[in-house]
Amino acid sequence: MGNFIASKEEEYSKWYLDIVQEAKLVDYSPVKGCMVIMPYGYAIWERIKGVLDEKFKETGHENAYFPLLIPYEFLEREKKHVEGFSPELAVVTTAGGEVLAEPLVLRPTSETIIWNMYSKWVKSYRDLPIKINQWANIIRWEKRTRPFLRTTEFLWQEGHTAHETEEEAESETLFILNLYKKFIEDYLAIPVFCGQKSEKERFAGAVATYTIEALMQDKKALQAGTSHYLGLNFAKAFDVRFQNKKGEMQHVFATSWGVSTRLIGALIMVHSDNKGLILPPKIAPIELIIIPIFKRDDEVNRRILEYATTIFEHLKREKFRVDIDKDIKNSPGFRFSSAELKGIPVRIEVGSNDILMGCVTIARRDKDKTSKYQVSVKELSSKLKDELESMQCDLFRRALEFRNLNTKEIMGVGAHSYATFKTYIDEHLGFVLSSWCGSEMCEESIKSDTKATIRCIPEDFKNRSLDNLTCIYCNTEAKYLVLFAKSY
Amino acid sequence: MGNFIASKEEEYSKWYLDIVQEAKLVDYSPVKGCMVIMPYGYAIWERIKGVLDEKFKETGHENAYFPLLIPYEFLEREKKHVEGFSPELAVVTTAGGEVLAEPLVLRPTSETIIWNMYSKWVKSYRDLPIKINQWANIIRWEKRTRPFLRTTEFLWQEGHTAHETEEEAESETLFILNLYKKFIEDYLAIPVFCGQKSEKERFAGAVATYTIEALMQDKKALQAGTSHYLGLNFAKAFDVRFQNKKGEMQHVFATSWGVSTRLIGALIMVHSDNKGLILPPKIAPIELIIIPIFKRDDEVNRRILEYATTIFEHLKREKFRVDIDKDIKNSPGFRFSSAELKGIPVRIEVGSNDILMGCVTIARRDKDKTSKYQVSVKELSSKLKDELESMQCDLFRRALEFRNLNTKEIMGVGAHSYATFKTYIDEHLGFVLSSWCGSEMCEESIKSDTKATIRCIPEDFKNRSLDNLTCIYCNTEAKYLVLFAKSY
Repeated sequence: MGNFIASKEEEYSKWYLDIVQEAKLVDYSPVKGCMVIMPYGYAIWERIKGVLDEKFKETGHENAYFPLLIPYEFLEREKKHVEGFSPELAVVTTAGGEVLAEPLVLRPTSETIIWNMYSKWVKSYRDLPIKINQWANIIRWEKRTRPFLRTTEFLWQEGHTAHETEEEAESETLFILNLYKKFIEDYLAIPVFCGQKSEKERFAGAVATYTIEALMQDKKALQAGTSHYLGLNFAKAFDVRFQNKKGEMQHVFATSWGVSTRLIGALIMVHSDNKGLILPPKIAPIELIIIPIFKRDDEVNRRILEYATTIFEHLKREKFRVDIDKDIKNSPGFRFSSAELKGIPVRIEVGSNDILMGCVTIARRDKDKTSKYQVSVKELSSKLKDELESMQCDLFRRALEFRNLNTKEIMGVGAHSYATFKTYIDEHLGFVLSSWCGSEMCEESIKSDTKATIRCIPEDFKNRSLDNLTCIYCNTEAKYLVLFAKSY
Repeated sequence: MGNFIASKEEEYSKWYLDIVQEAKLVDYSPVKGCMVIMPYGYAIWERIKGVLDEKFKETGHENAYFPLLIPYEFLEREKKHVEGFSPELAVVTTAGGEVLAEPLVLRPTSETIIWNMYSKWVKSYRDLPIKINQWANIIRWEKRTRPFLRTTEFLWQEGHTAHETEEEAESETLFILNLYKKFIEDYLAIPVFCGQKSEKERFAGAVATYTIEALMQDKKALQAGTSHYLGLNFAKAFDVRFQNKKGEMQHVFATSWGVSTRLIGALIMVHSDNKGLILPPKIAPIELIIIPIFKRDDEVNRRILEYATTIFEHLKREKFRVDIDKDIKNSPGFRFSSAELKGIPVRIEVGSNDILMGCVTIARRDKDKTSKYQVSVKELSSKLKDELESMQCDLFRRALEFRNLNTKEIMGVGAHSYATFKTYIDEHLGFVLSSWCGSEMCEESIKSDTKATIRCIPEDFKNRSLDNLTCIYCNTEAKYLVLFAKSY
């Protein structure tokens, strides 16, 4: 098991690919860039989906479903949108044995088809707001793909809301950004920086794009979710107008936002180790695995299995997501490795010694084997609750320490600052907080020079003074503090 | 409201289309034959999905996700499969700005891509059974479409299982058939006939197709779900072999099965009336709607709303799916009609008279207005539980009576039987239970003559004797009792 996985320190990229395959999260399909999400990988997605779906509904959003196929002409109606998505489109030209008069594209995102429908649905301010979410598959023809992180087909949710006023739409954009941040931090135990994207990195068709940026263990950043304020761009493109309270006709303000199966990639890359996956308890499809330690004696084994099964049933009743491993052929060591590979947060060993003591032995996935200990069956439930909670906190804290350790400030304060910046980005990677004049020229020069991009204008540092700071590249007056990083 | 809906008796087809639009279940999209499933329609689908998903998981099935795009060549590997699906395929020929070397089809069903993966996953009997389900969108290029019943894109679940033995695969096929039947009868309150399809009506690539057939209010039948025993057809096409317990290599036995958003069409057509939708309580997204009856007095209205809100909160805590209508502008009559249009099972009226008495007034969607009555707040919960349960039973019973009334036996017993059969099918429609020799010639002759097809060889009558019966068409010896009907 464990030895099929490359070392994270030596071959990070192979390590990642080994984990997704060995833990049976995905498999490669015969269609280039399209992954098969296997049952265990899909179970993680179902956990993510379940939690987010509930949060969306609690806050007044409804689910709906819009067509996969979009007339190409729809994309052309928003100039930047079509520019941004054209290179990635897959196009249906033939259907039902006939060449189509108008080609249909597979949705790369659904703003156009949805706003076409909103033009039918919105007539008066009484029809607003519309807050619709869709769970769907998306196709973007990517040149270089990697399971979960960038695939030709992926699963996501996309929210599309329509509002009377600019303020309301902007506040929805930030509300969702914050909902994402809280979810990713609380459930996935991944610390994130939030903030606006630079104009260059904006979603094609947005007025403002807000992003959530996480740091992987190879110190590259990953965009984990985005929330866009679309202004009137799509309302104008699809002529969506309504009669406002004053009786005047006006266009509708829009937002859109999404997270995808990419989150599973982030989850793997932030927490896992050379033994395999490590899943935060709150998102793990299986929180606990009971592993009876069988002997060479059938009668003893019968009793061990009976004892383990009683505990299993008890924990199920207590609403733990628990599994039991009844494999009698393989060694305990092999079975421990399998459970570790799958990232199950807590292992519960049941041996004959445990039975004698009225105990079980529990081991946490994120700690080494010397830390495992016996717990009496009586105390088991409450002890497990504690361990799962503290594991969740520990994983977040560890990731946060790593992120902070790898977030460096290198401000523009003179001509040689950029040299320091460049050397640091090249050698250390991570996030670099720096000062920028706001020009796309500097942004592009830095990118072509270092491969680092502006990840966002972080909210976290928005109260910091820019006094005396200059652009890290051109040395003119700084207008923004921004986070640079190499990224996925 | 109600008056936008055509009369079921006069214009059945328009009545159906009016309901799906007026109750905001679907809207037409700009892409021919593709529907937009609106929030209320999607909420019904989420209820169906939630219940079925739980039943699949309880019985050892796991969810996964396979690619939308399938190499055309895969379909060609199973001769009947490609013959059956070729006319309906949508084909991607261009992607990422380039013409594809090999065209990719949008999945019309996923047997081929899944069995291609199973060939990688199955090596030994220890890898079996595989019991995977997928929730996905499906594309079939249909010439004549109708919302929910037949659309170019629809949502469904498709189960694909792999087994060591023929017996196990056959038993899975029937297990799922029975699961579907129970679900459709218990939750959707739709009585169904189960049975095998004739060879002509079989799924393209199956050894045996089992179906579930329901009768709509226009006395046409609707296929509501299918479960296929695929034998070794796909294992052979994709060379899926395993080492069995004796150490020999053998092919894997397969099943596949699915139900789709078509079920929503059945739900509408079986229960609804000229006022709109009627939803069985167990599947209704909203079981109860509280409608405060406002007056022309603000202070009275404040108290009515407060009283109604207390009841609303109470019923929510009791886990009812309950909504409250705070609309103060429209008349109670208008608001009652809206709730009726949406098919909400029970309406709870709260007027000032109710408050004085410590009561509310409850009205069931499936009964006329003279049957509404007052209930004390104290007894409300238990009374509502009773009403919802008995409404569920009543709807099923009513549909069953209708179905039985419209299921006629006309057996082949002599030369003039077919004339009776034909007249009956033409004039009365409904199911006709008849005797058949088993030849495709007779089956096709009957179809071209009467437009009725063999819906299934029903399980319900399998113990009936065929003695002295002849084929209703050719008068030779009868081999099967079959149900004929005109259908969707």
